[in-house]
Amino acid sequence: MPTLTPKQVTDVCAAIFEAAGAPEDRAQIVAEHLTRANLCGHDSHGIQNVPALISLIKEGMIKPQGEWNVVRETPSTALIDGGLGLGQVVCQGAIKVAMNKARTVGSGSVGVYNCTHIGRLGDYTTTIAEGGMIGVIYANSMPGVAPYGGRTRVLGTNPLSYAFPTGDGDPILVDFATSVVAAGKVRAAQHRGEKIPEGWVLDKDGKPTTDPSDLFLRASEPNSAGVLLPAAGHKGYSLAVVVDLLGGALTGSGSSKKVAKARNGVFVQAFNIESFVPMEVYLQNLKGLVAEVKNASVADGFDEILVPGEPELRSKQKRLADGIPIPDFAWQEVIKTAKDFGLDLDTILSLPK
Amino acid sequence: MPTLTPKQVTDVCAAIFEAAGAPEDRAQIVAEHLTRANLCGHDSHGIQNVPALISLIKEGMIKPQGEWNVVRETPSTALIDGGLGLGQVVCQGAIKVAMNKARTVGSGSVGVYNCTHIGRLGDYTTTIAEGGMIGVIYANSMPGVAPYGGRTRVLGTNPLSYAFPTGDGDPILVDFATSVVAAGKVRAAQHRGEKIPEGWVLDKDGKPTTDPSDLFLRASEPNSAGVLLPAAGHKGYSLAVVVDLLGGALTGSGSSKKVAKARNGVFVQAFNIESFVPMEVYLQNLKGLVAEVKNASVADGFDEILVPGEPELRSKQKRLADGIPIPDFAWQEVIKTAKDFGLDLDTILSLPK
Repeated sequence: MPTLTPKQVTDVCAAIFEAAGAPEDRAQIVAEHLTRANLCGHDSHGIQNVPALISLIKEGMIKPQGEWNVVRETPSTALIDGGLGLGQVVCQGAIKVAMNKARTVGSGSVGVYNCTHIGRLGDYTTTIAEGGMIGVIYANSMPGVAPYGGRTRVLGTNPLSYAFPTGDGDPILVDFATSVVAAGKVRAAQHRGEKIPEGWVLDKDGKPTTDPSDLFLRASEPNSAGVLLPAAGHKGYSLAVVVDLLGGALTGSGSSKKVAKARNGVFVQAFNIESFVPMEVYLQNLKGLVAEVKNASVADGFDEILVPGEPELRSKQKRLADGIPIPDFAWQEVIKTAKDFGLDLDTILSLPK
Repeated sequence: MPTLTPKQVTDVCAAIFEAAGAPEDRAQIVAEHLTRANLCGHDSHGIQNVPALISLIKEGMIKPQGEWNVVRETPSTALIDGGLGLGQVVCQGAIKVAMNKARTVGSGSVGVYNCTHIGRLGDYTTTIAEGGMIGVIYANSMPGVAPYGGRTRVLGTNPLSYAFPTGDGDPILVDFATSVVAAGKVRAAQHRGEKIPEGWVLDKDGKPTTDPSDLFLRASEPNSAGVLLPAAGHKGYSLAVVVDLLGGALTGSGSSKKVAKARNGVFVQAFNIESFVPMEVYLQNLKGLVAEVKNASVADGFDEILVPGEPELRSKQKRLADGIPIPDFAWQEVIKTAKDFGLDLDTILSLPK
């Protein structure tokens, strides 16, 4: 399993996206997004996703030179047509619009349609928090999750993320799918040959299953795909509906069922903290909560209590020091994708010949 | 068990709050809020809560004549000092401010501190949705829930609610506690002499328990109270932190641990739909999602799939037709509270002498 430095990951990704037709600056934005996803341990949104994204470019589903535009606007809101451009580039644009509005009138809320895959949601809210504001994002996605009480794929994993600046350290970061798990965790269990807990997946007949392969379509068997269940029953389901209505209905992107492969309906917000309270009041309360969490007694079976965002932060610290490990099968796919464009990975990686 | 008409519930509540010092119009606002909670089946926020609220007024924790004021403001945001007035009155004021801002600049976001118990969150978002806008509310509350991995009461049940107008019917309403259940459900199991499922509560020693009485302080035994667990582990916990930071830190109300008995730190938002997309685009997408949910295949063990808010709506339809049942012990408490003010409930209820 190769281990790359963050710069190597960025350089490989940027070279591939540039070769696929993205302008240099946009290729760099996407590459840095993917690298940060790897650093945070969200590998399904990292370099591992490059082959799939490049396929989508080749299919015309993502237009690497597509332009985004604000098509409707009020002092605190905007609607953006993403132009099917690179999702990470479009969404970075959307958060800038939201932050500018928050700077001017206290808060900014921006919807995006014609938006291709935006990747890791926590990246955008973190950027907003690093700008000193509170960030919120909701994104619906293609269907894979049953409504509570159902067994049909209606909702996406419909994730949401919040980030809060902490003044002197990394933001408090909340970033989760409203399904009981993301599909990637089921795929990972399948790759490891492990069972999954009951309550994650129903098979094609709507029966509870612990076999991860029951979630996925078998090439030999039409209608063999199962369905993910919502987190916490009606609560995760309700939240998935919220994400679908904010990301899909309020932006005109359409519901999860109508969101095309590798698209997201996106709704993002930025809040200017000092429009509400002086920064020191906010920070004092935030730090108070963090201390209360950290001082709580630990439950049986746990070593410590983490603040939301700490798992990602620890991964980042470890991978900044040790490098980013990439599973062999994923790395072979990246190499193949690069070779298809005639790229010489050894040169890009600055490896000795 | 007496069964009252909605008007009787409102009249009894209004008379008691007026007797406790609330101006007539405010007593009416609170009484109607409580009645709607009963209609929706959220009885813990209905007339059953009157004795506790009146005790808080007598203790000086709620000031029935307290005034709320906007103390900080931008075009799209406001901070309100609730003045420890009646929470329902203050929060109705807050949503009006948010809706006015949304009408003017597309969205309105309002924080409230010095805010006493606001009751049922879904009531406020429903009001916003009935005004044709999307409503969102977060409220932190006194601690009773462990952080994920912990066994100490750090977070409140920290609920949140969203409501979406549907054009021609009741709103889609999401309203839930970020704990696995609200404390009221554990209390109800205790009253019925039933066990609770594992995963709801840890006892005073941090051990999983199925005995609902393990959640509550035994009068004879200091430190005997247990703790509720967050919904879906780290997801409900993360969301509880979000509610705490938006409701507590961004408003200056303080974290759950610092929120006094029967107070809420409140953050509310209204979005003007047509600032984003034409109403018909929004409604078409929303109705599409509802149809997709309703057309999904039903899972084993379920009769049908409900849209968020349907359980409340069905309760309302039933109770509008059949009246609001009030358990005897709760009704006796209400009678006692009324008698303490020298009120004649028979006259208020217009019962034959």
